Amino acid sequence: MTFMRDEILEQPAIVRRLASTPEPFRAAAREARACGARFVLYAARGTSDNAAVYGKYLATIAAGLPAGLAVPSAATVYEAPLDLRECLVFGISQSGETPDVAEYLARARDSGAFTVAVTNESESPLADAAHRVLTTAAGEERAVAATKTYTSQLAAMALFWAAWTEDGAMAAALVDEVPAAMKAAADAEEATQTVAARLSHADRLIVAGRGYNYATALETALKMKETSYLAAMPFSAADLRHGPIAMVEPRYPALLFAPEGRTCAGMLELAADLRSRGAETYVVAAAVDAARDATATVALPAGVPEALSPLVAVVPGQLLALHLALARGHDPDTPRGLSKVTRTY
Amino acid sequence: MTFMRDEILEQPAIVRRLASTPEPFRAAAREARACGARFVLYAARGTSDNAAVYGKYLATIAAGLPAGLAVPSAATVYEAPLDLRECLVFGISQSGETPDVAEYLARARDSGAFTVAVTNESESPLADAAHRVLTTAAGEERAVAATKTYTSQLAAMALFWAAWTEDGAMAAALVDEVPAAMKAAADAEEATQTVAARLSHADRLIVAGRGYNYATALETALKMKETSYLAAMPFSAADLRHGPIAMVEPRYPALLFAPEGRTCAGMLELAADLRSRGAETYVVAAAVDAARDATATVALPAGVPEALSPLVAVVPGQLLALHLALARGHDPDTPRGLSKVTRTY
Repeated sequence: MTFMRDEILEQPAIVRRLASTPEPFRAAAREARACGARFVLYAARGTSDNAAVYGKYLATIAAGLPAGLAVPSAATVYEAPLDLRECLVFGISQSGETPDVAEYLARARDSGAFTVAVTNESESPLADAAHRVLTTAAGEERAVAATKTYTSQLAAMALFWAAWTEDGAMAAALVDEVPAAMKAAADAEEATQTVAARLSHADRLIVAGRGYNYATALETALKMKETSYLAAMPFSAADLRHGPIAMVEPRYPALLFAPEGRTCAGMLELAADLRSRGAETYVVAAAVDAARDATATVALPAGVPEALSPLVAVVPGQLLALHLALARGHDPDTPRGLSKVTRTY
Repeated sequence: MTFMRDEILEQPAIVRRLASTPEPFRAAAREARACGARFVLYAARGTSDNAAVYGKYLATIAAGLPAGLAVPSAATVYEAPLDLRECLVFGISQSGETPDVAEYLARARDSGAFTVAVTNESESPLADAAHRVLTTAAGEERAVAATKTYTSQLAAMALFWAAWTEDGAMAAALVDEVPAAMKAAADAEEATQTVAARLSHADRLIVAGRGYNYATALETALKMKETSYLAAMPFSAADLRHGPIAMVEPRYPALLFAPEGRTCAGMLELAADLRSRGAETYVVAAAVDAARDATATVALPAGVPEALSPLVAVVPGQLLALHLALARGHDPDTPRGLSKVTRTY
């Protein structure tokens, strides 16, 4: 049908393959530890920046380290001297061609950081700039809107931090459980078509997630902007409550990610609160029964460890973006005015 | 007319007063240095989170330190053990009552960080949690939408980092030059009314900034969401180019902040690019002549140091949000469904 759909469906196999060869991730984690890395920064743009958000949550919650998103313009625009001793700096880019990310990584290396490139292209300026390269091996991505390279970046983040924290169960889950759950999540395609039909005339959309799945909200909203040109606004549940919730009036559409785990109850509470303000709520959850008052639900498979749930929960988000684009008469493979590699400084 | 307008106009005097008593900021910077702080994290929500973004850019660009936004849910939702030795952690909250920020700061302190509260309420849970309190002394804020507490937080960030970097010129500019420029920026009120009238029926808006003024784009978009319920989407110029720019079709409205400095040329280039895609562009700039092909411009005073320009550039952003709310028939002082203190965990 479309490259985008094909590539969404390729994802479980790519994650399984990547997770089956964990040695490069273990070696990178060992080296970073040996360099005394204690603070973590991620440099990325667009979809890769959403994978960076997931990486930041893993570094913070799973590894207990201070972590943040870098300011690439510090190097490329402001030419500021940086002191990045004891820092572990990731540069993430599908193409490895994003000039500001590659340049920031080179500057980070010169400033004392241990640098890791996460890219689908092992021969690229980003790869050249880094101490170590983690290749995402997702194959060529033909749709302009990234899907399989996103989840392969998530898998790379999870494999690295599983190695760092010596969490064998997490590494093992990425080989079997997670790919199986990603496949099961894609079975919800019909439900995403139903939601897409309801949203086909929407001109704005709240997309909310919390904790690990804040990244899922960010990425789903970005996909919808890129392929459906919809004003999809991503929020962490907490930030939504701190102001933007004032936007909600009767029939305001809101998409909420509520996978199993510690953030689930709060997300379902938010869904109920939005519903009481008259919003139309679309809830992506394993516990769809608990979201019975939602306008519509999209089922996630049960039993996925929360730290890995962004690999699974984004699948219905991607399918929803795909079917929304089709319902609105757009070609999701070739968004207007975008090319596969964006050059920003 | 409204509390919000009164409070916008109070801002220059508040910044001047705060900058005239720099000793608490110097003492906090001395103490943080003495504790060996090398990594910087900020915890905040809503408007305060936008002040945190400015603080992150200052720490990165002016002080050359690795800096990021914290993950409060690591403490409040995931109860993760954290290792924050050699970290300087700021908690920013107008009321000091935001439970997750206060709880995160307490956890950061227990985890080895040197902690600083930036708040308008020196008797508050956040102040109680911190090693040191920097009071923003903005007086009671009566509008629900924060304006003067935002710029007072920006001033607190600038005063702290001026002290850290021993940049006497920066500290001095906050006493005279910056308050004078904030006052001059408010003279553009009529121009903001003109833009507000043009946007009064808009249902979506791109708001873009770069570098230091990414915070200005974030805060202006948030103010518009809170008081005009508009789908105002903030972007850094680079991230906009990496995907969301596909949304732009003829007559798509876009507000761009292009103050003087290293990001100005790139912002004007973006404005021209959006214009060539048929967008309606509203450009806030000192060099309004250089944005002659914009749909409308709002003039900023010239000669403001770029690192301090967010205190000045946000003033027309706030006025625009105010007049947009009025033009749309809303009371900007009391957004629906919001209260002054939001409690999230």
